[in-house]
Amino acid sequence: MSLKSRKNPSKATKASSGSKKSWQGRLSADADAATAELVASLDIDRALWRYDIVGSIAHARMLSEQKLLSRPEFKRIHDGLLKIAADIESGRLEMPIELEDIHMVIEKALTDRIGQAGAKLHTGRSRNDQVAVDLRLWARDAVDGLIGKIAGVQRALVTLAEAQGKVVMPAYTHLQRAQPIVAGHALLAYAEMLQRDADRLADARARINVCPLGCGAVAGTSLPIDRARTAELLGFPKFARNSIDATSDRDFLAELCFCCAMLGVHLSRWAEDWIIYSSTEFALIELHDAYCTSSSMMPQKKNPDTLELIRGKSASVIGSLVGMLTLLKALPLAYNRDLQDDKRFVFNSVTTMEQALTVSAGLVATSRLREEKISAGIDEGYLDATSLAEYLVGKGVAFRQAHHIVGELVSRAERSGKTLSELPMEILRSACGKIGADVAGYLGAANVVKRYASDGAAGAGQLRKQLAYWKRKLA
Amino acid sequence: MSLKSRKNPSKATKASSGSKKSWQGRLSADADAATAELVASLDIDRALWRYDIVGSIAHARMLSEQKLLSRPEFKRIHDGLLKIAADIESGRLEMPIELEDIHMVIEKALTDRIGQAGAKLHTGRSRNDQVAVDLRLWARDAVDGLIGKIAGVQRALVTLAEAQGKVVMPAYTHLQRAQPIVAGHALLAYAEMLQRDADRLADARARINVCPLGCGAVAGTSLPIDRARTAELLGFPKFARNSIDATSDRDFLAELCFCCAMLGVHLSRWAEDWIIYSSTEFALIELHDAYCTSSSMMPQKKNPDTLELIRGKSASVIGSLVGMLTLLKALPLAYNRDLQDDKRFVFNSVTTMEQALTVSAGLVATSRLREEKISAGIDEGYLDATSLAEYLVGKGVAFRQAHHIVGELVSRAERSGKTLSELPMEILRSACGKIGADVAGYLGAANVVKRYASDGAAGAGQLRKQLAYWKRKLA
Amino acid sequence: MSLKSRKNPSKATKASSGSKKSWQGRLSADADAATAELVASLDIDRALWRYDIVGSIAHARMLSEQKLLSRPEFKRIHDGLLKIAADIESGRLEMPIELEDIHMVIEKALTDRIGQAGAKLHTGRSRNDQVAVDLRLWARDAVDGLIGKIAGVQRALVTLAEAQGKVVMPAYTHLQRAQPIVAGHALLAYAEMLQRDADRLADARARINVCPLGCGAVAGTSLPIDRARTAELLGFPKFARNSIDATSDRDFLAELCFCCAMLGVHLSRWAEDWIIYSSTEFALIELHDAYCTSSSMMPQKKNPDTLELIRGKSASVIGSLVGMLTLLKALPLAYNRDLQDDKRFVFNSVTTMEQALTVSAGLVATSRLREEKISAGIDEGYLDATSLAEYLVGKGVAFRQAHHIVGELVSRAERSGKTLSELPMEILRSACGKIGADVAGYLGAANVVKRYASDGAAGAGQLRKQLAYWKRKLA
Amino acid sequence: MSLKSRKNPSKATKASSGSKKSWQGRLSADADAATAELVASLDIDRALWRYDIVGSIAHARMLSEQKLLSRPEFKRIHDGLLKIAADIESGRLEMPIELEDIHMVIEKALTDRIGQAGAKLHTGRSRNDQVAVDLRLWARDAVDGLIGKIAGVQRALVTLAEAQGKVVMPAYTHLQRAQPIVAGHALLAYAEMLQRDADRLADARARINVCPLGCGAVAGTSLPIDRARTAELLGFPKFARNSIDATSDRDFLAELCFCCAMLGVHLSRWAEDWIIYSSTEFALIELHDAYCTSSSMMPQKKNPDTLELIRGKSASVIGSLVGMLTLLKALPLAYNRDLQDDKRFVFNSVTTMEQALTVSAGLVATSRLREEKISAGIDEGYLDATSLAEYLVGKGVAFRQAHHIVGELVSRAERSGKTLSELPMEILRSACGKIGADVAGYLGAANVVKRYASDGAAGAGQLRKQLAYWKRKLA
Repeated sequence: MSLKSRKNPSKATKASSGSKKSWQGRLSADADAATAELVASLDIDRALWRYDIVGSIAHARMLSEQKLLSRPEFKRIHDGLLKIAADIESGRLEMPIELEDIHMVIEKALTDRIGQAGAKLHTGRSRNDQVAVDLRLWARDAVDGLIGKIAGVQRALVTLAEAQGKVVMPAYTHLQRAQPIVAGHALLAYAEMLQRDADRLADARARINVCPLGCGAVAGTSLPIDRARTAELLGFPKFARNSIDATSDRDFLAELCFCCAMLGVHLSRWAEDWIIYSSTEFALIELHDAYCTSSSMMPQKKNPDTLELIRGKSASVIGSLVGMLTLLKALPLAYNRDLQDDKRFVFNSVTTMEQALTVSAGLVATSRLREEKISAGIDEGYLDATSLAEYLVGKGVAFRQAHHIVGELVSRAERSGKTLSELPMEILRSACGKIGADVAGYLGAANVVKRYASDGAAGAGQLRKQLAYWKRKLA
Repeated sequence: MSLKSRKNPSKATKASSGSKKSWQGRLSADADAATAELVASLDIDRALWRYDIVGSIAHARMLSEQKLLSRPEFKRIHDGLLKIAADIESGRLEMPIELEDIHMVIEKALTDRIGQAGAKLHTGRSRNDQVAVDLRLWARDAVDGLIGKIAGVQRALVTLAEAQGKVVMPAYTHLQRAQPIVAGHALLAYAEMLQRDADRLADARARINVCPLGCGAVAGTSLPIDRARTAELLGFPKFARNSIDATSDRDFLAELCFCCAMLGVHLSRWAEDWIIYSSTEFALIELHDAYCTSSSMMPQKKNPDTLELIRGKSASVIGSLVGMLTLLKALPLAYNRDLQDDKRFVFNSVTTMEQALTVSAGLVATSRLREEKISAGIDEGYLDATSLAEYLVGKGVAFRQAHHIVGELVSRAERSGKTLSELPMEILRSACGKIGADVAGYLGAANVVKRYASDGAAGAGQLRKQLAYWKRKLA
Repeated sequence: MSLKSRKNPSKATKASSGSKKSWQGRLSADADAATAELVASLDIDRALWRYDIVGSIAHARMLSEQKLLSRPEFKRIHDGLLKIAADIESGRLEMPIELEDIHMVIEKALTDRIGQAGAKLHTGRSRNDQVAVDLRLWARDAVDGLIGKIAGVQRALVTLAEAQGKVVMPAYTHLQRAQPIVAGHALLAYAEMLQRDADRLADARARINVCPLGCGAVAGTSLPIDRARTAELLGFPKFARNSIDATSDRDFLAELCFCCAMLGVHLSRWAEDWIIYSSTEFALIELHDAYCTSSSMMPQKKNPDTLELIRGKSASVIGSLVGMLTLLKALPLAYNRDLQDDKRFVFNSVTTMEQALTVSAGLVATSRLREEKISAGIDEGYLDATSLAEYLVGKGVAFRQAHHIVGELVSRAERSGKTLSELPMEILRSACGKIGADVAGYLGAANVVKRYASDGAAGAGQLRKQLAYWKRKLA
Repeated sequence: MSLKSRKNPSKATKASSGSKKSWQGRLSADADAATAELVASLDIDRALWRYDIVGSIAHARMLSEQKLLSRPEFKRIHDGLLKIAADIESGRLEMPIELEDIHMVIEKALTDRIGQAGAKLHTGRSRNDQVAVDLRLWARDAVDGLIGKIAGVQRALVTLAEAQGKVVMPAYTHLQRAQPIVAGHALLAYAEMLQRDADRLADARARINVCPLGCGAVAGTSLPIDRARTAELLGFPKFARNSIDATSDRDFLAELCFCCAMLGVHLSRWAEDWIIYSSTEFALIELHDAYCTSSSMMPQKKNPDTLELIRGKSASVIGSLVGMLTLLKALPLAYNRDLQDDKRFVFNSVTTMEQALTVSAGLVATSRLREEKISAGIDEGYLDATSLAEYLVGKGVAFRQAHHIVGELVSRAERSGKTLSELPMEILRSACGKIGADVAGYLGAANVVKRYASDGAAGAGQLRKQLAYWKRKLA
């Protein structure tokens, strides 16, 4: 993290604010407009302002405790920063782009307001560790926000599963009808995915939650600062062990980008399912109009645009993850200015997912399963074939043979346009003599779901247990 | 490309503008704030305003020629759109977010101003082909802009190569000193890379330059429109053959993203070289202060921040390319709302590269080779070893033996801390009896570069030819 | 492109083959097994053998014409290389991994067989330009192969469109029923996509088709080689202008990777469509059993596995593209060993797409549209709504009003479970007094497709023209 | 996970093995050669054989405990599988490609050998949960292997840091000389990075370590299986809660790919540093010859090829991560055949990193810092500027003023070609009157490193503590 030349203030600076940059010592020329824009990150990093102020107050408090600031100096810094915070919150603080980043905006406002004491704030600190601590404070909050929003979607899924989850619908594999399930089981599959996202974020949080403040530019400092104290003041359970690593480490952002990418992929899988399920042909689910739009040309259209946008957001978060990793690839130690762009990637990942989760929760909460349509079509597609094979296993037929027998029966039924339960008993018995009248209890989707016996299976009993689990967990 | 529900205006709309959406027919509920934000693309697609207006005027002119609009209707539309253009240019047109996109902003402003005639503009057109034509018009301009900026960097390289290109410097492979070259040869290597980028963009332009207007939502129209005419009016040499393909095709954007990614990678390779070359240790190049910054903690630093940022931009354009391709992956035909995000990716790719190229041109133009330092160190690293081997080939030694002999001589020279030309003749001759006094003309970097004979090699003669070539080409 | 240490053969070499590397001069220690495996590329680059031999023969012929080889030396090299080619073709040539790459395998086999003359083959050449020319020869063939296979898929699409293309099916946008189309129009949309892939490959070919041979390691050579001659012998219309660029340029591979990624995305969109269309619910298409598989547990399943695998291959080619670009990111000039991995990416891209195209052609050729099912369901979903709106435009209603009126009529029809053509005339006329008896000719999918008038629209007349175009083009 | 058509064995099958697939019931046609190759995964998934057998034995044991197999049947299965394992280990088992995958190879071998009992093994199981459990067992081992290899590199770093870590070298930011550090501090920065990789892998392991067996194809089973028992037998602390999720979840592989990508990026940063550090110009580190290679053309070259290859491997693991995420993007629930390719990505990620880590450990262990060269150049670049500024802070100067004063002094020193400690006292005092004779103790790199006071800083005292920490941790 570096700053502009010291010797001469840039023309832009002169023109618009008259301010003089504090490090105008060694370098001599002015940057032109395109360069000014390239090196400025203010449009992006202003989002960090709150964390920057919190971090500076903690740093100043420690400096005063260590006698590197006097009590009155600290008081002036502390009060000055709080006033700046209020001004930013209310939109009153000017942020001229030639100050380049939010850190300089705040430091300059402070120095303008309190003079000499402000010039001491940066004691024992570099932009490199300052930016790192700001990012970690931001990322910690971002993780907490995402975990909360994930729970919101999960609650909506559980609520829907409770309200309509007992209806028997087809499960699909390969987008082909596979076996009958209670619908709630399918809804809770998404809750499972999302829980892993939440758990992954919680793991990432532990790696975020390490304080880099006090690592300076790259090597630490000869001044008697107290890193344990600033860590404590900022709620970090520990501080970073190695100053070189701490100032160039962006793993925590890459990991957060990955968590968002995985989450985005999960949302895309759910969105894809529901886009297909809300087609005229599948007709399994009805979306609320608020989440659909029509067409500018075709008056009859009701399109699941919101789901499509959510599906598409996976591209954005995968792209940001790639950007972040590529940024870091082959980057020498320690801080390099390439890292200025880290924020573009991770801010996009987090805000994209926050938005997608908020909308998803509302969309799930307002959707309803089309129970009549689902039930009307449930006996298409030989969903009970596996159940029949397992019936034969119960009669002592080896599974591979049972599978083969049922395969032949399905072919036969298909040719005559019948379901398995419509096949006459003599046909069944000619395929396998062990089939008896009790087979009726294994055929038809409604019967099949009653028989699911294994933990985690798709029957009503298992659903009850799972719902209880989730309600406890999300309470 | 779809639009919001027709029946009721959204709450947001009511609250903030009182406007009524024109298609409030079939859907019934309001979208909440997060959804409104998700479905809106106005913050991004406002960049298309000029193209949208140009496209609408061409469409309206054709409609009037086909008697689908009366002359006075066309006149009102034409003049209305030009006034809107002026208002947007001067920042006077309000763009309430609940109108979602720039197309609706413009259409609504038109209808508000000219009434009924405005309601006829969308005849024989859908948002789907309208967006597609806007994007293609934008992309065509974007390509032309990028090609122009590439030439700017090339000119700066050629100018520097002409001014200082004759100094003999080491070429590196594996970042190890390899052979001596004239510096201009290295500078022109970047010009070559960039030329391929320009050529690739020109190829992409031909695929961009196809008119989708008139393809409607997906199937075309039953109205007697004239697609050849709108294509002609908009400067497209041809129109798209298939309406389904034309409304869902975003290849041209993905290809543009790829062109930018490749370009970004090239800039990253150049930036990497120059970052290394401007280190204290390499000391081959001096950057102008305007392109460097200092450190907030370390007073002596002069950092090549601009080059680092340019290097890092490769991550952004690779990320956008991945986003674009992932967006399209497994997307069913034809238009799907996921495509709303195409603009985020491609706009980022193009503006990022425009900025990077502008800065690069300035940076190259203000840099200078550190000729004294380069010359002082040129005889380190046995850069003349290959020349010696080729001398032996001239004496009839097979190249593999020559290579081996020189390898031994280098080891020997290294152990005694000498250069090859400092080795006594008896040592040289003990390694190979064919070495004679004429070997002196093959040793030392200055001699080596004089001897390069092959086309495209790194000597002064070849440089002269290449410079002539580039000056002609870039004139 | 670099080779192993000269002084001592590695232990692996000693142990397994007793061969001595030719450049054992300066370096002293042995590589361990993992390193040997890391630096070896033989498992991958053996695919280049044919191009390596062709390239070497051209180089040797030029050397002899330039008197750098005698006639008999050239003859020995030429015949030796042809014999080695025959031995590789028949699987008789041993390729010990300690020789690292195919280039060394061939050079060593040659030297073992013909002695001294072989040691002269590498005159005026480096591994760096040798590898570059091999890759370009390979890539040129790869492009030609892919273009041929693309045409194969296009032919299958055209054949199917001709055989069954007149059946009227729904077009989808947002996976919702949009407008009626003739099925052939949808099939030809894929042919359009694929044509862009072929055109893009042809453009890439021009950038591939540039000869780097004679650029040496990085700086060219002092020996009197004739680059125009080797270019001509190898069928290259021109040679590379700059030796530094030519030895480190891998753009042509990245561009080929991109072409494959775009192609893979196209195939994934088609595969997605057909997976959905072959579901029980959509039932638009029937895949041949040869391209489907069943389930190990569920006896009734017929899954479109082949299409799913093709859809999934888009991930592989996007991944390879990312790998290639990331490999190049921030890589200093000129050759660096990182580039050894370029082949992994591009070989994967090309072979994956070759396979996918071959299978796709077969799959399309054996599929059939389920015409009865399609026709039975065609009047669901108000596909004629846009046609009705255009009818109103013909009656002088502004399109926006027409769109609104039809929206209301669709709502009304939906509530009463009717199609638009089933609505009584008084209902129609109460919505808009301009509706007359002639409206019947605009309702119903079959009528709608007859009315498509615009170029590139989805009607039978346009299809005929398009089929004629494609048959000419693919003849 | 699906299998081939039941009715007719494919031609390939007939020709080469005469085997009959067990599910030849419903489908009718043969696949052609390209399709056979596309659907086969045997070349990749044979790596799973051991896990497949272990999983099947656990499943069979549970089945027998649940009376779904008799004791003798279990015994035959158990012994049969162990014999097959031995045959695979010794390379004696034939694996005809028409069996498609390793699961079918093993099942068929079992049925061929033990008949009827083998046909019962698949009771209550599907290929979908079988594959999922195999992959999880494999991934668990992969994680453990990677963590072990990471520790190997860390140990080598610690050993080197202990041996040579006290030498004072420059730290770099922006590749410009920043502050002096003890070299061990830089070495341990890499150990920190790698530790986060190990911790991340350990977190991923917890999500891998969940048993999907018993989830069947998608819905579970009606048979009385005991999932807790199989989980226990396979060492899983818990089993998956939801059968739909468990059969389509590949998060654990994507997360493993991410861990490898992050690790690969870390290795690339280290490799980049050391490639630069081993250049003639930087000359900080000497690599062992075993990890370097020479050039085929340039006899003097010693290239750090191994480091370059390691740097380049980051591209491969980032590419695989992108492939994995793209594969999953928008994939409907539950199992789809696209997932067959998951193994290509994750196997590549893991084996690439295993290889890179193994080589890295050896490379670090054999490298040595060039202490003399480092020391000779240490006083270039004003590394003590920050120390001087902090000296002034100790004298009561505000840091911003101190920074400015030192900036001016550096400019002055630079112009006269002096180091800061060579500046006369009167010059120093003219810049700031508070400078006294004690300033000498703050100038010169050796003095600076003695003064580092903060935790995690780059001095010798901190290094001692860190070394103690790492030796304990890695013991």
